[in-house]
Amino acid sequence: SLRALSRDLDISISTALQAYMTLENQGLLEARPQSGFYVRSRLVAASSQPDMTKPPMTAVRPGKAEVMTDVYRAMGQREMVPLGAANLPTELLPTRQLHAMLARMTRLYPDEAMAYDTLPGNERLRRELSKRSITLGSAYAPGEIVTTVGCMEAVNLALRATTSPNAIVAVESPTYYGILQSAAAMGLRVLELPTEASTGLCLMHLERALKRFPVKAVVVTPNYNNPLGSQMPVANKQKLAELAARFEVPVIEDDIYGDLPHDGERGAAVRAFDKKNWAIYTSSFSKTLSPGYRVGWAVPGPRFFEKIERMKFTETVATATPVQMAVAEYLRNGGYDRWLRKLRKQLKVQVECATQAVLRAFPEGTRVTRPSGGFVLWVELPKRVDALALHTACLKKGISIAPGPIFSTHNRYGNFIRLNCGNVWSAKIERAIKTIGEMAAK
Amino acid sequence: SLRALSRDLDISISTALQAYMTLENQGLLEARPQSGFYVRSRLVAASSQPDMTKPPMTAVRPGKAEVMTDVYRAMGQREMVPLGAANLPTELLPTRQLHAMLARMTRLYPDEAMAYDTLPGNERLRRELSKRSITLGSAYAPGEIVTTVGCMEAVNLALRATTSPNAIVAVESPTYYGILQSAAAMGLRVLELPTEASTGLCLMHLERALKRFPVKAVVVTPNYNNPLGSQMPVANKQKLAELAARFEVPVIEDDIYGDLPHDGERGAAVRAFDKKNWAIYTSSFSKTLSPGYRVGWAVPGPRFFEKIERMKFTETVATATPVQMAVAEYLRNGGYDRWLRKLRKQLKVQVECATQAVLRAFPEGTRVTRPSGGFVLWVELPKRVDALALHTACLKKGISIAPGPIFSTHNRYGNFIRLNCGNVWSAKIERAIKTIGEMAAK
Repeated sequence: SLRALSRDLDISISTALQAYMTLENQGLLEARPQSGFYVRSRLVAASSQPDMTKPPMTAVRPGKAEVMTDVYRAMGQREMVPLGAANLPTELLPTRQLHAMLARMTRLYPDEAMAYDTLPGNERLRRELSKRSITLGSAYAPGEIVTTVGCMEAVNLALRATTSPNAIVAVESPTYYGILQSAAAMGLRVLELPTEASTGLCLMHLERALKRFPVKAVVVTPNYNNPLGSQMPVANKQKLAELAARFEVPVIEDDIYGDLPHDGERGAAVRAFDKKNWAIYTSSFSKTLSPGYRVGWAVPGPRFFEKIERMKFTETVATATPVQMAVAEYLRNGGYDRWLRKLRKQLKVQVECATQAVLRAFPEGTRVTRPSGGFVLWVELPKRVDALALHTACLKKGISIAPGPIFSTHNRYGNFIRLNCGNVWSAKIERAIKTIGEMAAK
Repeated sequence: SLRALSRDLDISISTALQAYMTLENQGLLEARPQSGFYVRSRLVAASSQPDMTKPPMTAVRPGKAEVMTDVYRAMGQREMVPLGAANLPTELLPTRQLHAMLARMTRLYPDEAMAYDTLPGNERLRRELSKRSITLGSAYAPGEIVTTVGCMEAVNLALRATTSPNAIVAVESPTYYGILQSAAAMGLRVLELPTEASTGLCLMHLERALKRFPVKAVVVTPNYNNPLGSQMPVANKQKLAELAARFEVPVIEDDIYGDLPHDGERGAAVRAFDKKNWAIYTSSFSKTLSPGYRVGWAVPGPRFFEKIERMKFTETVATATPVQMAVAEYLRNGGYDRWLRKLRKQLKVQVECATQAVLRAFPEGTRVTRPSGGFVLWVELPKRVDALALHTACLKKGISIAPGPIFSTHNRYGNFIRLNCGNVWSAKIERAIKTIGEMAAK
């Protein structure tokens, strides 16, 4: 207890809190919500993360999209304990506030909300995004921004603007399955690259790949990769921008989790170090404000701006106007930063609780990532465990998980699962993790 | 005057009205808003429509997308007299009512409105679409419907599901330029087919094309084609469905104007005659309820359903939830049919007024279509007129128009323009049409 410590040592409460926070930052203490500070479990300290990944250096066409549709569908089922899809429950989102802004903006500006949004996207929203863009390490004007239907449309536009069928696109291994589906839909070949659980994409291997293959685009999640939770160090981001310039290869940067570091400031974008304009920045508010509003954006840079803007018109004409206006108003005036501070703390605790539960309940030899942001855990189970079979078994118990193989084209990660830690920690979730562990042991 | 007629002939007002409406249906009278019934101008009766089109029978890759972006952008400029983009002003849309439903649905169901919509789209909306689908000539279950970001996403999904790069897609000539842009983005070759100003796509030529070319999809707007305003007779729709089955070629049916006949009942969908499931139905509410909400839908049929559903997830993950809920509520409970009746009458009058103005003000030899629905006019000017130059000259006068060449891949229709008649008729619009006519004469 803070109070006990301040009394015992005759220091002020704020000094005691400072001390605890320092220890927390060093990973020796952990904060539990509505409870207090606890000595961090040895389990986590002792556990190791998954090793560097070693995907084969071959470019392949993803082909399992059909099979996996069932997996995605199951992951999204609402009656399940939702450890599958990476998703926040509405209780952790500014639900009433955002809806109230939607109502207010359509009442104040009924005509604007009703009309087709014009290229490159809603002006109010682009203005607010521009104001905030300094947090990415480099500011962008409203005219440099294209708004989209979530981050996925932005990534798809960037892929279409930089590749043509049969081209090779380099991705992290493991990578978000949506990228693999897009590559499959566009007839692209995918080259998976090794990653480290903490620092993400291995640039040595990327450089080697760029020398050997005619790579047309690199898709990367520098901040809090999904599923790894890794963050590229600043030096790596710089190096990545340099490699892009040297090999003249576009880097499509998916920053959807960028606003959700567990500690400290948000990480910069690769685009901030990109003097030659090879980086295409993409993000959205689906992981911070509302998945259902479908509001995303891109900063394509001068090299790709016109093409991406034109393609946006071709694909969906425009993004829905009212939802863009509501997000713009929230950014202007809703306390987004305050909101983020609260959400980050909450997610850190949830990830921590899930990690503890996994290490307690899962078979010996299980390894877990230590994400520095976001809200997913990447769990390596003993080799004998079949993640797809585990997924099916879990569904029967009313629990959804994301099986490892969907994050790769090579049938790799057969003994990995991704756990969504977006939910408020509860006995129900703890029990679900225990059940997964028991089934994995069998 | 109705009153004078009823007095003069000693009949009831409603009988007089009935008589006027019969004469109106026969094209002998015209209704002018807030004014009354007038004997229809001889001009229109005497004018002829453009001839059957005769595009060359070759499949080409559309290549002018870059140039045309300026045209689209200019067409959407808000400060112009808006005769370019096919668009309704908010005063002709149920603006406050729809926004009020948006506010109400997000208040009543905050969690649902916040969450990712699950495949194949918002259930409330699919339920209401299903109920209404009987007006298409054949009813569809909610489970047969995929919701989309406007009609354009639906058409794009259908094109991607049925073609691969370099494939040939047959379209009407002239056709909506969005189709040509999509074909360009997907690397497709476009085969333009002859059309009649009244009945649309010429099936004799389609059949010939299907025999000669490996056509992978036919894109057609059976009801109120844009820019022609043509409507396929029922027999042609039937025949088209038969051709699709015989040649095993998918028909992508764009019915975005289908709810806007000027007289009588809405036309059936080709899909209603399609026993072998080759027709993919697409539509949206962008021309009837709200362009800005971006709510569209598709009925892909069992042959293409899974593929299109999967692709929808890949492209944009989901359509924004709140806007779908608002449209669903409007359909359930907002008087959509009553609304449509009012809107159709209004549009008919506006198209009529614009036709009269064009025939009065444009150079001799001008021909105009007589659309049976929707709200665009396709105007053929004398051969010497260059529509692209006219477009540029009009922009300088603060008037936007849609130049003919954007509706074709062949640089055809160089002396055609499309006029948006979505605006409430006014002296300003009349003056603008007069100005266009004067510039065309020069």
